[in-house]
Parts: sequence; structure tokens; C-alpha cells
Amino acid sequence: MVNLPKEVTIAEVCPRDGFQSLKETVPVDEKISFINGLMECGFKQIEVTSFVHPKAIPQLKDADEVLHRINRKNNVKLRALVPNLHGLERAIASNVDKVKLMLSASDSHSLSNANRKTMEAMAQFDSLVKRAKETTVKVSGSISVAFGCPYEGEIPVERHLAICKKYDELGIHDISLADTSGMANPVKVKRIIATLRDAYPHFNFSLHLHNTRGMAFANAVAGLKEGIVDFDSSVAGFGGCPYAPNASGNIATEDLVHGLEEMGIQTGIDLDRLIALGQELSKAYPQQADSFIQKAGKISDLHKSPTNQIKLVNE
Amino acid sequence: MVNLPKEVTIAEVCPRDGFQSLKETVPVDEKISFINGLMECGFKQIEVTSFVHPKAIPQLKDADEVLHRINRKNNVKLRALVPNLHGLERAIASNVDKVKLMLSASDSHSLSNANRKTMEAMAQFDSLVKRAKETTVKVSGSISVAFGCPYEGEIPVERHLAICKKYDELGIHDISLADTSGMANPVKVKRIIATLRDAYPHFNFSLHLHNTRGMAFANAVAGLKEGIVDFDSSVAGFGGCPYAPNASGNIATEDLVHGLEEMGIQTGIDLDRLIALGQELSKAYPQQADSFIQKAGKISDLHKSPTNQIKLVNE
Repeated sequence: MVNLPKEVTIAEVCPRDGFQSLKETVPVDEKISFINGLMECGFKQIEVTSFVHPKAIPQLKDADEVLHRINRKNNVKLRALVPNLHGLERAIASNVDKVKLMLSASDSHSLSNANRKTMEAMAQFDSLVKRAKETTVKVSGSISVAFGCPYEGEIPVERHLAICKKYDELGIHDISLADTSGMANPVKVKRIIATLRDAYPHFNFSLHLHNTRGMAFANAVAGLKEGIVDFDSSVAGFGGCPYAPNASGNIATEDLVHGLEEMGIQTGIDLDRLIALGQELSKAYPQQADSFIQKAGKISDLHKSPTNQIKLVNE
Repeated sequence: MVNLPKEVTIAEVCPRDGFQSLKETVPVDEKISFINGLMECGFKQIEVTSFVHPKAIPQLKDADEVLHRINRKNNVKLRALVPNLHGLERAIASNVDKVKLMLSASDSHSLSNANRKTMEAMAQFDSLVKRAKETTVKVSGSISVAFGCPYEGEIPVERHLAICKKYDELGIHDISLADTSGMANPVKVKRIIATLRDAYPHFNFSLHLHNTRGMAFANAVAGLKEGIVDFDSSVAGFGGCPYAPNASGNIATEDLVHGLEEMGIQTGIDLDRLIALGQELSKAYPQQADSFIQKAGKISDLHKSPTNQIKLVNE
């Protein structure tokens, strides 16, 4: 297979994307223990929380406390989502390494998420970037519903290009392309990423994939072939799809790590430790648990041949 | 994306692979109605049953009756699995279009399935081929656990080549490569298929994929890129994995058809009709239901924007 990278970096997003999707709020002590556990698995980037208004997402109202109480390691970058200047101030006070700006590719998704159209939302970013520059906090961007909007369908690539132009003007070159409701396919992933990389070769694009229609791993492979080496995923597949409550959500980190390692691509993650952490989480919140590897085991977990068993009895 | 075909053929295997995995036996009238429904969805090849001993797989003991009572259409090829000469005689009497010979790539899987090693099992095929040649029944072959054996792990490609050599001597060039317990990945699919196609360019290889570790669609895409245009799949994902009872089984036909069509590849299947058929089946046997599209809907099923709804109220 041509052009596959030797290694990739996986950012774990369960503490934000997974926990905000749970009906119940995970107790703060549990969150801290879980995030510390993630660091022990070898993750070098963790999306810890989102500094949104506690009324909007009460499950993440403890964002400040979580960031102040978790173990900090020099080689683990902690990032958080921020929707506005107030969120950014909280993120700065909590000493995050990186903030991710929230943005939707379609106007209707942007209106429903941020109460303003895409370009109106981007216009607010100037003040955030200016403020962040006074600190050591890095700023990254995102394009949600990048591979299809649940309200509008197909997103013309001209919109991605216009968004990237504005990100470029803002000096933001680290962009997460999110398949928020699982509408991507390998052909679309290739087409959009190839177009964006040609136009903005100095950007670092990452992929945030959902397995809503069973194509997440195929989309990851399509991304790899276009040079993507940064992926988001969520332990045990936590993180749902609001449009189809029973559908699959984020690609499970266990499944992504396992599949990539099977393909000979290093992730730097201790898979056995990760599987144990995911099993613990799934036991506590079984409704969200959705990992193939949790159910099937690793490919390397071989079974005892019934024939060999018979032989042992006979011999 | 290079080298993607414009169209593919999907053989539906639920009546055999799915129904043999159910604890209960699907009543014969239900089977007949289901298979007739499959033909109305546009399938051109259906794996209707397996002519095995009723004690081995009681769920398929009605194989002869099913084949005699379903609607026959000139443009729909009906195939059945046969393990031995007695099964072949029943298949001939039932007027199937094609039989598929069962064979495992590994000796231990072959021993547990057929009570003899791989090459010993192949030695039995001569008499079957000889008998089939006296009729109009076509003979196809299979290589189960082609991408990994749950007892032995990796299968050296020399084994595939030796099996294909014997198939070639037998005049059997239509070979199903089966990822029986979901141990394939896109790199392995590419490597094995490329090797086999180079050695046996006159063969027609097809892919029978299981989604045990979430990589089935990615493996299908890897197959497409190697020129595979024939796939097996099972409505509603029926068909399990005996090594992990809760794990996913066959790739769901709805998911495969939907994903391929999204990529611009024609399948000739009426997807809406197929989804309805799958929903009916899943309602009757919910334990086996495992289709992403059943839970999430098609990508083209757009949702009403909450903003638009508010607007309608306000305006």
C-alpha cells in the first residue's frame, strides 16, 4: 500500500466528546482518575474538556477543576474547546496547552450550535486569537460537519476553502476536520483533503471521525493515504450522534489503535492498558460502550483449537 | 481515488450464513418469503443454503424444500454450500445454479470444520468436480480464514498459493476469500489479493468480509482497489462469530450497498427496499441485528434544522 505513514498521533477526546454525550455527569474524581489513566496509556494529546457555559453542557461544568487537579506531564499536551472569549479566559487560567475553536462548515449547523452563521462565527475569532497571543496557549481550529451536514447534506469544497483562508489570515494552521455525524466516505475524504492540502500545504489537518455508518476506519485509511497523521478518537467509542440516538458515535480509540497497529503503523499507545481502561469505563456507563475490540478481542488473541483439545484428551 | 470500479456485484448470504448462526430455526415459509424478497431487491446471486447433514446444522435442514419452493428467476443465480458428494447430489436434485466448496486455509480450522486437514479436504474435491461436470451446476471454491485463523493466526501466503494451484488443477477459478473471523486489515487484503491475482490472473476472486473488528468496509475498499468486484454480505449483519458471541459478524448488506453507492459505485440493489426487508428480519430476530444504516439511516436522510423550525415559528 503506497504512502502509508510509519507512525501517527492519536488525540483522545473521550473526556470532552464522550462525557458531554452522557446523560449523567461523570463525577469529577472519576474524570481525573480517567484522564490520569489516559496519560499512562501513552497519549501525547488529550482533549480534556470544553469551556462552555455550564447551562449549555452541564456535564462539563467542572472544566476548571478537572484541569487544575489532573497530573500534568511535560510531554502530554492538554487541549480544550472554547466557544468564546470568556471560555478562552477560563482555559488560560486553567493553563491548557492548546485551545480548539469551534466552527461548523454549514450555516445551519453553525446557527444551531453557535447561534450565528459560519463566517459570522469566524469573525469572532479575531479577538480570541489576539488574547491568546498574549499567552503561551496555542490556538487550533476545527471544521465540524466537514464531510456532510445533517441539515444541508453535501458541503461544497468552496466553503472549506473559504474557511481555511480565514484561518490562514488568523494564523491558525492546525485544523481538525470533523465528520460530526458520520457522513464521510473514502472518496469524499480523499477529495476534500487533497483539495485543502493543495491550497494550504502549510496547514496541519487532522481527522475527527465518527462511525455512524460503519465507514470510520475506511475513512481513516483514506486520510492516511492523503498524508494525515493526526487523528481524534474516543475510548470505548463514547460520544454519540444526536440525530440518531442508537447509532454509533466516535470511532473507538481501541479499534483505531488496534487496526492501525495491525497495518504496521505505530501509535505509541499501550493497547492492553487502553482496553482495560475502556472496559472499566464501559462497565460504569454501559449505554455508550461501542468498541469492536472490547467485544471481539484483539486479532492476536488466538483461540484454543477444539481439535487440539481433543488430541490432548486422546494422547 | 484510483482504480475504483463503476459497479460491483453483491451476493446475499444471509439465508445461509445468517440463518445458520441463529439459535432458533427460521420457519421454512419465512425463509421462502425472505429469499423471494431478496430477489425483488435486485440481487443477482444469493447463497440460499448449505447442503450439510441436518444434525450438523439443523437450522438448514430444509435446504431442499427451500430451493424447490422459492420463486426462480432466470437472471438470479442461486448457490449453495456443499461439504461432500452427498450434499452435491442434494444440490443437483434441487437444481441450484452453483455450488460452493467449503475449505479452510489452516489445518486446524479445517480439522475443526471438516475433520481433515486442508489438502486432505481438497483431495475429496476431485469426485465432486467429476460429478458436477455431468450436470449444468457450476462449481466455485472458497478459502475460509484466508486473512487469519482464530487458532493459528497469520496464514502464510504460500498456503493460499498451494490451494489455488489445486483449485486450478480442478478447473475451479471462482474463489471466495473469506475473512471468517474478522482478522483482515487493508494492508493484508492488498498483499494477499495482489499475490494471488499475479499468480492466477484467470481466477475470479470475491471477498466475504466480517466486521468483527470494525474494519470490514475498509477491507472492502482495499479489495476494490485490487480489482475485486464481487462481494458477499448479509442483510442486517446476520451471521455471527462463534469465537466471540457478542462480536459483530458479516458486514451488513445495507451498510455495504449504502457505502459503495455513496462512493459512486453501482450495486444494482434497491437500497430502500433492502432496508425495509432488513428491518422486518431484525424485528423477528433482534439478537442478530447489526446494521449501521438500520440504526443511523442513510446519509441522504437529512434532518430538519432546529433553527429552521424556530424560524417557522417566528415568521
